[in-house]
Amino acid sequence: MKTIHNPKKEHWSELLRRPTRTFKDIETTVDDIFKNIQQSGDDAVLKYTSMFDGVDLENIEASKSEIENAESQVSDELKSAIKLAKSNIHKFHEAQKTEPVKVETQPGVTCWQAKKPIQKVGLYIPGGTAPLFSTILMLAVPAKIAGCSEIVLCTPPNKEGKINPVTLYTAQLCGIDKVFKVGGIQAIGAMTFGTETIPKVYKIFGPGNQYVTVAKQVATTFDVAIDMPAGPSELLVVADETANPEFVASDLLSQAEHGVDSQVVLVSTDEQTIVDVQKAITKQIEVLPRMEMAIKAIENSKFVLMKDDASASELIDFYGPEHFIISTKDDDFYVENINNAGSVFIGKYTPESAGDYASGTNHTLPTNGYAKQYSGVNLDSFNKAITYQKITEEGITRIGEAVELMAEAEGLQAHKNAMTLRINEIKNK
Amino acid sequence: MKTIHNPKKEHWSELLRRPTRTFKDIETTVDDIFKNIQQSGDDAVLKYTSMFDGVDLENIEASKSEIENAESQVSDELKSAIKLAKSNIHKFHEAQKTEPVKVETQPGVTCWQAKKPIQKVGLYIPGGTAPLFSTILMLAVPAKIAGCSEIVLCTPPNKEGKINPVTLYTAQLCGIDKVFKVGGIQAIGAMTFGTETIPKVYKIFGPGNQYVTVAKQVATTFDVAIDMPAGPSELLVVADETANPEFVASDLLSQAEHGVDSQVVLVSTDEQTIVDVQKAITKQIEVLPRMEMAIKAIENSKFVLMKDDASASELIDFYGPEHFIISTKDDDFYVENINNAGSVFIGKYTPESAGDYASGTNHTLPTNGYAKQYSGVNLDSFNKAITYQKITEEGITRIGEAVELMAEAEGLQAHKNAMTLRINEIKNK
Repeated sequence: MKTIHNPKKEHWSELLRRPTRTFKDIETTVDDIFKNIQQSGDDAVLKYTSMFDGVDLENIEASKSEIENAESQVSDELKSAIKLAKSNIHKFHEAQKTEPVKVETQPGVTCWQAKKPIQKVGLYIPGGTAPLFSTILMLAVPAKIAGCSEIVLCTPPNKEGKINPVTLYTAQLCGIDKVFKVGGIQAIGAMTFGTETIPKVYKIFGPGNQYVTVAKQVATTFDVAIDMPAGPSELLVVADETANPEFVASDLLSQAEHGVDSQVVLVSTDEQTIVDVQKAITKQIEVLPRMEMAIKAIENSKFVLMKDDASASELIDFYGPEHFIISTKDDDFYVENINNAGSVFIGKYTPESAGDYASGTNHTLPTNGYAKQYSGVNLDSFNKAITYQKITEEGITRIGEAVELMAEAEGLQAHKNAMTLRINEIKNK
Repeated sequence: MKTIHNPKKEHWSELLRRPTRTFKDIETTVDDIFKNIQQSGDDAVLKYTSMFDGVDLENIEASKSEIENAESQVSDELKSAIKLAKSNIHKFHEAQKTEPVKVETQPGVTCWQAKKPIQKVGLYIPGGTAPLFSTILMLAVPAKIAGCSEIVLCTPPNKEGKINPVTLYTAQLCGIDKVFKVGGIQAIGAMTFGTETIPKVYKIFGPGNQYVTVAKQVATTFDVAIDMPAGPSELLVVADETANPEFVASDLLSQAEHGVDSQVVLVSTDEQTIVDVQKAITKQIEVLPRMEMAIKAIENSKFVLMKDDASASELIDFYGPEHFIISTKDDDFYVENINNAGSVFIGKYTPESAGDYASGTNHTLPTNGYAKQYSGVNLDSFNKAITYQKITEEGITRIGEAVELMAEAEGLQAHKNAMTLRINEIKNK
């Protein structure tokens, strides 16, 4: 674990480089699969599920009895934990509701903005041995609050054609309409075009590997929106001598266990803190079940010593971390000065894992520096804002002439005429 | 002008089909130009400007004196009109500011959401004989309110290497930092990668032809966000016997003059209204300077008679129009029942052109059915929402165990450990 001392600005870009994405290589595969799903619907979905997931399904959709039986296979403790998390996520996202914004910009010119739910949404949940059921809470809870009328979920089946019971239990708890045993590119394609069984949706949410990520991006060229482009998960911790090195090490490791391409960065203004954190990592990493993965991610991690809080915050803002933990003597300084971060965890008792599961904030967040321009998933991710306006005769007299002049200057005579006819009718009354 | 009577639901999709987009054909051209700009920066920009705009520029950036001289070339009447529009747009978008949302989800677990501006934004304004300076107001005014720190504008030069003075005047009035004489794919590429002269931005806004549209979509695969994908402009009017057929005809024509692929739809529950509107169109179209374009767009337009308001509103919601004018005896019925529309104009004195220029609402809106899942440009288009959380010792005791259980169930032991270390430290105090 090498520490970089006060890197010069011209080296920040190289130092904090994220792994390159391979959009073009995967795009051809996505194009093929999408074309097949467009043409053959369910048949294509079943073919790819057999090919990639190694299982020949009889039914794409999870049956009622499968869903009902799931509950008994989840421990009561875990069910309580999931319910507590759901309740907190509900509280935080419910509070994000906004009233319509109404303004009379001129006498007789009333404009307002109101939000309406995106009616059909699709949630993608990766499978594997340890399914990310927590992501169902993060997506379905705000979708329900927004009032989306159709919420479907796709997740890959295991080799027996089954979905993990915790996934099914959580989906049912959240009131998801339909659960489909489809993963990967074929799941994104099915929700993009619709098949006999899987409905076409207007927006697709959820994490996934690089195939899913590219498929989601390609889906946006077919009239479907996505939550955000995704990359490997990231954590940046800023810590100084007031931090607990054991805690910091455990946070960095909780990021490192996600995968070998996880981005783990520690920034400090205190050299001893870095040394102590590195020691704690060496100790803690040995007992982790996912140790091998974590070791590789830690090898790629960066430990950066900066000379003061100002230069540290500049470096952090340049990076724009997905997760950002602050454990310093002046946490507020970083809260105020960092513009680019997905979710911010403040103080020594606020580990990232709190927000990953149960505090109430969303864990679907912008990676890959996208915190510079994307929000994490929030209530408005499931809404669209529509504007309305109503103009009276008085309103026409206030803005009519300006509209005529501007339309004429843009060479749009029919735009002008639409206003002129109204002005004349009012004049001739 | 053919009228379709009570079309069956299974024919709606065909009836209201929008023009197919040609993403793949243009993508190769975009890839080439992007690659060249990445490699050669300004040199490539100058080469493509010479090739596509037919002018060899000495300076890519508009000079101070060009900008200052522009003001004297704009009439005082037009300047007043632009200022009135700007003031209304400012009022409506300023009202969209939101306070941070703060919730204590459990005692000791405080979560909040706050918006921060996207620091660097790029605005694209199409050129041509009649430049759309009104779009500068629609993009720059909310960008300024949000607090974006760098706002740059790209617009193609004319054959003399100049930018229309109204464009320059409006840009200066809105406080835009830099104006570049670059159009088309090369403008989007330059703002995506940055060149020696043109800064890389985090998000690109603005309309454009199909080349610009595909370039923006490709830009999203290079760490840049865009306002929304775009298609030809659209207007749907629902009108009955209480509407003024002359007004309705003028509104439909104001859409038709945008281009031959403009989408113009009239829905009515009254057959005579359709007949009267068609007559008024025939009369009004003859005096339009852009008559030829309008005639072609009207040929492709749809006049649909529906049996009642309920079926009419269902058809409209299926279509999801960018602009939606309501002129009926029960306007509120449509306001309440339509879920999918970009901007809604209510009543006979509310032409689309009011919102295009001066009422205060934004005119950068979702076309191509995207009203189903995208908002038009609004204040939040220039912000991102960041979440924050701070947990106390009490908070840890409230949610710590749930986090441990969920992390373990997802097989993420290091996530669990980050919480366990804190729980133990508190216990041992």
